[in-house]
Amino acid sequence: MTVILKGKELAEKIRNNIADEISNLAVKPSITVIIVGEDPASRVYVKKKKEAAIQAGMTSEIKELKVSTTQEELEKLLDSINNNPDINAVLVQLPLPKHINSADIIQKISPLKDVDGFHPLNVGMLNSGLKPYAVPCTPAGVIRLLEEYNIDIESKHAVVVGRSNIVGKPISTLLLNKNATVTTCHSKTKNLVEITKNADILISAIGKPGFITAEHIKEGAVVIDVGINRTAEGKLTGDVDFINVQEKASYITPVPGGVGPMTIAMLLSNTLNLYKLQMENKK
Amino acid sequence: MTVILKGKELAEKIRNNIADEISNLAVKPSITVIIVGEDPASRVYVKKKKEAAIQAGMTSEIKELKVSTTQEELEKLLDSINNNPDINAVLVQLPLPKHINSADIIQKISPLKDVDGFHPLNVGMLNSGLKPYAVPCTPAGVIRLLEEYNIDIESKHAVVVGRSNIVGKPISTLLLNKNATVTTCHSKTKNLVEITKNADILISAIGKPGFITAEHIKEGAVVIDVGINRTAEGKLTGDVDFINVQEKASYITPVPGGVGPMTIAMLLSNTLNLYKLQMENKK
Repeated sequence: MTVILKGKELAEKIRNNIADEISNLAVKPSITVIIVGEDPASRVYVKKKKEAAIQAGMTSEIKELKVSTTQEELEKLLDSINNNPDINAVLVQLPLPKHINSADIIQKISPLKDVDGFHPLNVGMLNSGLKPYAVPCTPAGVIRLLEEYNIDIESKHAVVVGRSNIVGKPISTLLLNKNATVTTCHSKTKNLVEITKNADILISAIGKPGFITAEHIKEGAVVIDVGINRTAEGKLTGDVDFINVQEKASYITPVPGGVGPMTIAMLLSNTLNLYKLQMENKK
Repeated sequence: MTVILKGKELAEKIRNNIADEISNLAVKPSITVIIVGEDPASRVYVKKKKEAAIQAGMTSEIKELKVSTTQEELEKLLDSINNNPDINAVLVQLPLPKHINSADIIQKISPLKDVDGFHPLNVGMLNSGLKPYAVPCTPAGVIRLLEEYNIDIESKHAVVVGRSNIVGKPISTLLLNKNATVTTCHSKTKNLVEITKNADILISAIGKPGFITAEHIKEGAVVIDVGINRTAEGKLTGDVDFINVQEKASYITPVPGGVGPMTIAMLLSNTLNLYKLQMENKK
């Protein structure tokens, strides 16, 4: 029997726990979300993030900046947020307009408020086996979901398809930190099927609907679908051909309702953690 | 015909080029090497590093600290070095005595003077595909050696055995940045032979003499031996059973004379690079 990994249910549980904890706090955690430009998908995401934060009892603000915002203006805004003790967490919604250097912007965020965990200092802490201020939300959500279902990671062969800084690379790092043998594949990988067929745990984070088929899967594998793609009809779909892969997998995440909701839950969890660290530092 | 990758020769060429460049500089690059305690192997290493720096025309000092040195004393010394404009590069020889927290010490080094590239900020820059101030010396040396012999990395399946912060992890990162498909193996890996047998490029960095045998190798693989082990008779030997593996490999590094000399060459190269960056910043 294939087990469906119910990210939505777990995310709700986590969000309720966070809300409970926050209801007992005199000063509430605060997260600021910055968006530059009018990208409709990005606008939906930042609105969802703010709503989730408010629902958990946090305070949250969206800073909507014009697409013509300059590098300097955005960096100045981040400086003021970094120096504002009332804001515990900040994220800059990606992608940014092409005239802005994203890497420089990410490095401008104080690592202590870097709720996405994308600052190189946090990335390096994670890669060095140290505790970063925040772990990237989607990767953290994947691990949390595996743990919830008591899925062994140690000594398993995990194959991660995708190597973005946001998802693929930090998932590979987290799995390695949990003692998996980790293979990272990507667009330049040859013979992908030969590699994924050896995976005890297969994580797809490439953004191509139906790319991972039954042929890619070892019997009994754990399949985690991080893809969030929208079909021509506007339907959400993952990277995995769910119907056919499901028959071979031991565990599989659906899309929607799998990894997606975990990302938001981890964003709230990271915000609360950063808040606690900052409160601790004030003492 | 198996090609022996002559790290010693390449390292000499690199060191000569660096010496030539430095001979034309009015102010010489300067590297400080810190050693805590009396470990004989560490003492040999730091002496070698200083000698190589002097030979290249740099200035170099070894700070020999007593084994009883406290965390605070070592951190104070690093503060003074970080603030000393006459010192361009510093490294703390590892391992440190057990009473000292190595991770905290590494984070105390200014990333701009972190010639080993171990500071989390530099690690994170490398992992994020950005340009760190310095790339760890042994991993950088491995890549340089592959490049010297025009060995393709892109789309190759590279298997790295070992996941230390010093060698295994940064080699995996560098190979991924060069578009290899990368598998990282370690002590918890099961069925290691099944994995290494698929490697187009096999890198061993585990520190066990003769651990990698012909059985681990695919016909025609590139084999890089990062192990530096000393036998009971005091002879230097790698991780790889050289005689038998050589027959299957297309390229192979010897020990000694392979990766080892490249490490020192990259240390000098990193020192010169940090010097240049700091000179640039002063303008």
